[in-house]
Amino acid sequence: MRTLFSLIAAVCAGTLSVSPLQPRPVSLVVANGIVVTENQSRRVIQRGAVAIDGRDIVAVDEAEAIAARFTASERVDADGGVIMPGLINTHTHAPMVLFRGLADDLALMEWLQKYIFPAEAKTVSPEFVRAGTRLAALEMIESGTTTYVDMYYFEEEIARATREAGLRGVLGETIIQFPVPDAKTPAEGIARAERFIEGFADDDLITPAIAPHAMYTNDAATLKACRAVADRLHAPVIIHLAETKDEANGSQQKHHKTPVAYLDSLGFWGPRTIAAHGVWLTSDDMRVLARRHFGVSHNPESNMKLASGWARVPEMRRAGIPVGLGTDGAASNNDLDMFEAMRQAAFLHKLMTNDPRAIPAPVAIDMATIDGARAIGMDREIGSLEPGKRADVIVVSMRAARQTPLYDALSHLVYVTRGDDVRATIVNGKVLMRDRRVLTLDREAVLTEARAMAARVREAVRPGGGK
Amino acid sequence: MRTLFSLIAAVCAGTLSVSPLQPRPVSLVVANGIVVTENQSRRVIQRGAVAIDGRDIVAVDEAEAIAARFTASERVDADGGVIMPGLINTHTHAPMVLFRGLADDLALMEWLQKYIFPAEAKTVSPEFVRAGTRLAALEMIESGTTTYVDMYYFEEEIARATREAGLRGVLGETIIQFPVPDAKTPAEGIARAERFIEGFADDDLITPAIAPHAMYTNDAATLKACRAVADRLHAPVIIHLAETKDEANGSQQKHHKTPVAYLDSLGFWGPRTIAAHGVWLTSDDMRVLARRHFGVSHNPESNMKLASGWARVPEMRRAGIPVGLGTDGAASNNDLDMFEAMRQAAFLHKLMTNDPRAIPAPVAIDMATIDGARAIGMDREIGSLEPGKRADVIVVSMRAARQTPLYDALSHLVYVTRGDDVRATIVNGKVLMRDRRVLTLDREAVLTEARAMAARVREAVRPGGGK
Repeated sequence: MRTLFSLIAAVCAGTLSVSPLQPRPVSLVVANGIVVTENQSRRVIQRGAVAIDGRDIVAVDEAEAIAARFTASERVDADGGVIMPGLINTHTHAPMVLFRGLADDLALMEWLQKYIFPAEAKTVSPEFVRAGTRLAALEMIESGTTTYVDMYYFEEEIARATREAGLRGVLGETIIQFPVPDAKTPAEGIARAERFIEGFADDDLITPAIAPHAMYTNDAATLKACRAVADRLHAPVIIHLAETKDEANGSQQKHHKTPVAYLDSLGFWGPRTIAAHGVWLTSDDMRVLARRHFGVSHNPESNMKLASGWARVPEMRRAGIPVGLGTDGAASNNDLDMFEAMRQAAFLHKLMTNDPRAIPAPVAIDMATIDGARAIGMDREIGSLEPGKRADVIVVSMRAARQTPLYDALSHLVYVTRGDDVRATIVNGKVLMRDRRVLTLDREAVLTEARAMAARVREAVRPGGGK
Repeated sequence: MRTLFSLIAAVCAGTLSVSPLQPRPVSLVVANGIVVTENQSRRVIQRGAVAIDGRDIVAVDEAEAIAARFTASERVDADGGVIMPGLINTHTHAPMVLFRGLADDLALMEWLQKYIFPAEAKTVSPEFVRAGTRLAALEMIESGTTTYVDMYYFEEEIARATREAGLRGVLGETIIQFPVPDAKTPAEGIARAERFIEGFADDDLITPAIAPHAMYTNDAATLKACRAVADRLHAPVIIHLAETKDEANGSQQKHHKTPVAYLDSLGFWGPRTIAAHGVWLTSDDMRVLARRHFGVSHNPESNMKLASGWARVPEMRRAGIPVGLGTDGAASNNDLDMFEAMRQAAFLHKLMTNDPRAIPAPVAIDMATIDGARAIGMDREIGSLEPGKRADVIVVSMRAARQTPLYDALSHLVYVTRGDDVRATIVNGKVLMRDRRVLTLDREAVLTEARAMAARVREAVRPGGGK
């Protein structure tokens, strides 16, 4: 009897052909589910499976075909639920989960000046950011997000915690004109961003980025310097854009231009730019963004809760802009559940356009997956279940009373499903959560650490409290 | 040693006084939680408990005080979560859960004519309504609703299934001008409604009602006849009101009046009337409703999903109208989760008024509890945790990652909590769900039965299918 080694050697040498009936060994099969592929034809396989080897998807097909072609060393059973691409949260500030519910229902300036700025000034440290990122990662894994776009301080700490949790991240070090917890000046921030980007070059999970906060919180020189760093290091740029009416009006008063046109005049727009919000874009602005293939991150819950306004997503989509979905930071939403973002996107635009056909369920799912991938320039790697792409896959239960009966899985994903229905989360071929048990984080330790940090936050916003 | 009987006799005779240290036996204590009372002063007790005897609340106080004053034969531990009044869903069509997700993202008329009407005509029967109500009851118990207002066909079947599940219901037999599954004519429907109301008089859980569908689906004679029945039998009246622009425009064209003024001119408005939606009310309409103490049921998710428009709830509240929250039927929402309704109410009005202070979290909670009770004329019995009121109580976990840290329970209830976080549901002093296990329904049997009914629905809407 031949040894395994001699068999492999024979196959490699071409002296032995592998029979098509011989199942190929792969690392992981996700089986027994309704596969929502999000591929070009938006194929939905009612009884399907996904074969994964190492970090990549190798096949997506009918359950029987996968069973015949592959044997897996590890198996995830979807139990009749949905197997779909991991969700892509295109805009958040992960560590701000530690501020969630600290102060709500306030006008923006009161909220920032009385609560968020004092709390940040007194509490944000590498330790705080690590604890916050771990909590955010726990919440994201538990609710089916596999890739997220971040903008905060001490971004290298966020990157390390994200990698440890096993999530994929496009992580932007924030640049801002005034002193912030990790930089006294914008120049210091830019130097930190350069070190960060160089330090995480070619990482399998982390795409380091530079994130000038907004056009109104940075001067022209800083904005230009950020673009130069991004170009030199081939890094994405993340920016808040046209979020509030104040930003749009301020830009007109100061520069006699919209925020988009002002940034255009600086030469700020370049490759792989992710603009968050886009609430106050004009139709001309949309044409500029579409022509340059910029992605927009739409954050319906944050825009509603902060009364920022309505982002005209149907028009953006018609203009050809790739629009992804985001939750925004948990200080303004207050959670990171992308199923809520999908539902809100589907609800909001129907109301605002008076058209119940605006953003139907399948489009909301596109925005949370393949369109999100396009918006962040990663649609060749993620966003759909297709052979050759990274194996970022989630399994969503369809067994709740509120999901019964089941006529249409796409409708249920958007209109009756919660993040808590996610049963398994897989990133880069690695199972991060199985049967709702997160494998890469010590859940109780993460929650305990977060509660300890919250005690510091409470002290910081107490009248007369903090340093 | 005295017998228990002689002790009681002595107490009653006044010859023996009960020591204040002697704990009083009660049937149930809900302990170890943050008690959100929703009483007049909106007291929140950070470490509190609720004592219940039989169907009534006997005390709401600090945990230590309750422990000292009462011994309970049954105990529910809130594990540091929230203890609050059961949620009141002021508008739904319970059995329509069997149509959820059947057809979404369509214009209203296409949705009704191609899907809902054919499906109803071919499937709605007493058996169908029972199965649907059981599924809806399961979902409501699992998501913390303890009282709901319904409007559908075969309402006596709904009432029986509701009572068996242990829920409280204000249940209205639908009256409509054209033939419907349980009545060929409105006169037949009204006769059925009378029998139904008489059959459930003085029921502890069921308040039978009459529900003329809308001013545009009934003629003047039918509307007047409904009011006469309600007056004679002291029953509530439930009606859809000013839901769509078409209804408002149609009323102007046909009657040269708003729907409210038209109904006023018929003498339709009388005691205990619950009007669903109120999207297209004028300020004059609001004054009419306020003067007559009518309740409005606000259904933000349904109004958004069907693109019906924005109900001006902040203005209604300022006008003095009691406004409760509803989910509407699951064919148009698509679930019965009142936490989603609270969050949507908080989000929607901030956006539409450009004011992040509009409908803050505590007001959204009011609308789902005490204001809902006021809107349906039951605020002396339910809607808050106060001694003497019925013991309709829920326990909500605060241990999810997305609920960590916890600064403010009221914020968390609205912005990060889901129906699935409800751990225990108590109605009329009876525990319907404990540790997420529903005790009054066989969960698997209910889901299986619902799936069997769904097969009939699928057949009914299949081109060329059904009868």
